Amino acid sequence: MIPPPGAGSRDDRTIVVALGGNALQPEGESGDIHEQFRHTRESLGAIVDLAGKNWHIAIVHGNGPQIGDALMREEFARSQVPPLPLGVLVAATAGWIGYMIQQSLENALENAGVRRSVVTLITQVVVDREAALARPTKPIGRPMDEARARVLADEDGWAVAEAGSSWRRVVPSPVPLEIVEADQIRRLVDDDVIVIAAGGGGTPVYRDPVLRLEGVNAVIDKDRAAEVLAAGIGAAVLLILTNVDGVYRAFGTPQQELLRRLSVDEADRLLADGEFGEGSMGPKVEAAIAFIRNGGRRAIIGRLDQGLGAVLGEAGTVIVP
Amino acid sequence: MIPPPGAGSRDDRTIVVALGGNALQPEGESGDIHEQFRHTRESLGAIVDLAGKNWHIAIVHGNGPQIGDALMREEFARSQVPPLPLGVLVAATAGWIGYMIQQSLENALENAGVRRSVVTLITQVVVDREAALARPTKPIGRPMDEARARVLADEDGWAVAEAGSSWRRVVPSPVPLEIVEADQIRRLVDDDVIVIAAGGGGTPVYRDPVLRLEGVNAVIDKDRAAEVLAAGIGAAVLLILTNVDGVYRAFGTPQQELLRRLSVDEADRLLADGEFGEGSMGPKVEAAIAFIRNGGRRAIIGRLDQGLGAVLGEAGTVIVP
Repeated sequence: MIPPPGAGSRDDRTIVVALGGNALQPEGESGDIHEQFRHTRESLGAIVDLAGKNWHIAIVHGNGPQIGDALMREEFARSQVPPLPLGVLVAATAGWIGYMIQQSLENALENAGVRRSVVTLITQVVVDREAALARPTKPIGRPMDEARARVLADEDGWAVAEAGSSWRRVVPSPVPLEIVEADQIRRLVDDDVIVIAAGGGGTPVYRDPVLRLEGVNAVIDKDRAAEVLAAGIGAAVLLILTNVDGVYRAFGTPQQELLRRLSVDEADRLLADGEFGEGSMGPKVEAAIAFIRNGGRRAIIGRLDQGLGAVLGEAGTVIVP
Repeated sequence: MIPPPGAGSRDDRTIVVALGGNALQPEGESGDIHEQFRHTRESLGAIVDLAGKNWHIAIVHGNGPQIGDALMREEFARSQVPPLPLGVLVAATAGWIGYMIQQSLENALENAGVRRSVVTLITQVVVDREAALARPTKPIGRPMDEARARVLADEDGWAVAEAGSSWRRVVPSPVPLEIVEADQIRRLVDDDVIVIAAGGGGTPVYRDPVLRLEGVNAVIDKDRAAEVLAAGIGAAVLLILTNVDGVYRAFGTPQQELLRRLSVDEADRLLADGEFGEGSMGPKVEAAIAFIRNGGRRAIIGRLDQGLGAVLGEAGTVIVP
């Protein structure tokens, strides 16, 4: 059930939905634009449902496969066209993917008879400067062989690391602290507009007394960005949609068990115990925990096609205070 | 007669500023990001002045050099990564350039002690479907030799045309009819937020009874998009900033004369007489004429570094009803 209104600065009608980059372009697919549009349309059912039930909605999407494509294009053309910094590329993918989601969602809403507007805002996300210059750990872009990795490390100063049988570029992934455009996003969301923001985690910037806002070559985890956006706009609910049913104990073993409801302390303990391994569930649970600790009411992790069911408590994993 | 959209509802404090793509990356420069940021900063003086004088402001920027770079990256990588449609690429450049303007302008405003927020909205611009599929005439991207042009025409179905001593891709450039996100942009602008919108002219779409909004492979002139945006948000003033002082009669001849003030009928007559040749001034004057005919109060064409002076009537060319 939709929870009753509560105290504090959280709006119980406001939800931030985080969509994985794979929701739009599954890893390994070619990136053909018709495929991208098809996946985008299929990913939006839950959001149309929520919009029809009058939720105030902000959407954060990933950009993993798309930034991989963009980096490959930059690399192929680098003898002729100077590569763009990573932060500028993130903003470019936010424009590109935002346009696709915005148009697909507007069309789906119109087909469903739901009268809501959709906009995409290019978003800057403040990080700590030291953290943004820290040791790079997050792999981005497509895998390459060692020889190519060494060339790019030498010529472009990339940090590279071995990942399984291949090599990838690695960059810092600082924790987001604040969404620069939060007030404007909140204004639109409160006014019933569905806002796509912090695409690809948003472009990381730091605040400098002289330079003011300054971009850095790093990426921000989109679930963490969604959590900070949710705090910034006073959302009561954070919904992280992915390709698994929810949070599992002992995932991938015969004993695996879907956890339907966790207190934030239980989630913290499972995380500390390494229950979520090296996969992508760890950062999602971290984002959920941070959201609840910062005053959020419910963080839900669920499968893309069960979004509304997850919000209604019928599917997925809910993490509560 | 049915009054044109926007007529009678113009806000005298609202201005739309159109910045040429060359303001951010002069044609022929390498596209190095530091150059791009430097040009962007230098281009924003007029907007900081206007913001300090409490104008409500929307900004439209071009993307000519940047879409050229983007198309070249697509072309180099096309054996590995499928090229994106032109509309998606326009949205990507709107994210990329919007981020640069937004951050540079926020920093310049803070340095000037002007407390205003800046956001970038990804914008869809409605065109007529037939016009969008019409004969391609607008050259885009970098020049290439004939052999390359023939390969791309064969393999990717590009329309190409000889331009001087080289070849270029050509695409349709339909007249914009409506900004899909105009209401949301107006809401923000009326609320004192500076909004960057319709970057690169916006992504062209048409309305279809079944498909709803559908993108097309075309580009929209950014000055025409600025005019339609100005009508859509009820702006009284359209300021087109470029690299010449204003509108000249007999430009490039010993008799050239800067025209400081034109009625819309005079401007129409000069345009019909071919006074503005094949250069880029023609579309700017066309946009100015359309703006006034649709109910706008003043359209100003002036040099980038004289923006405020042009608004105050001290420089540039003003076109009035």
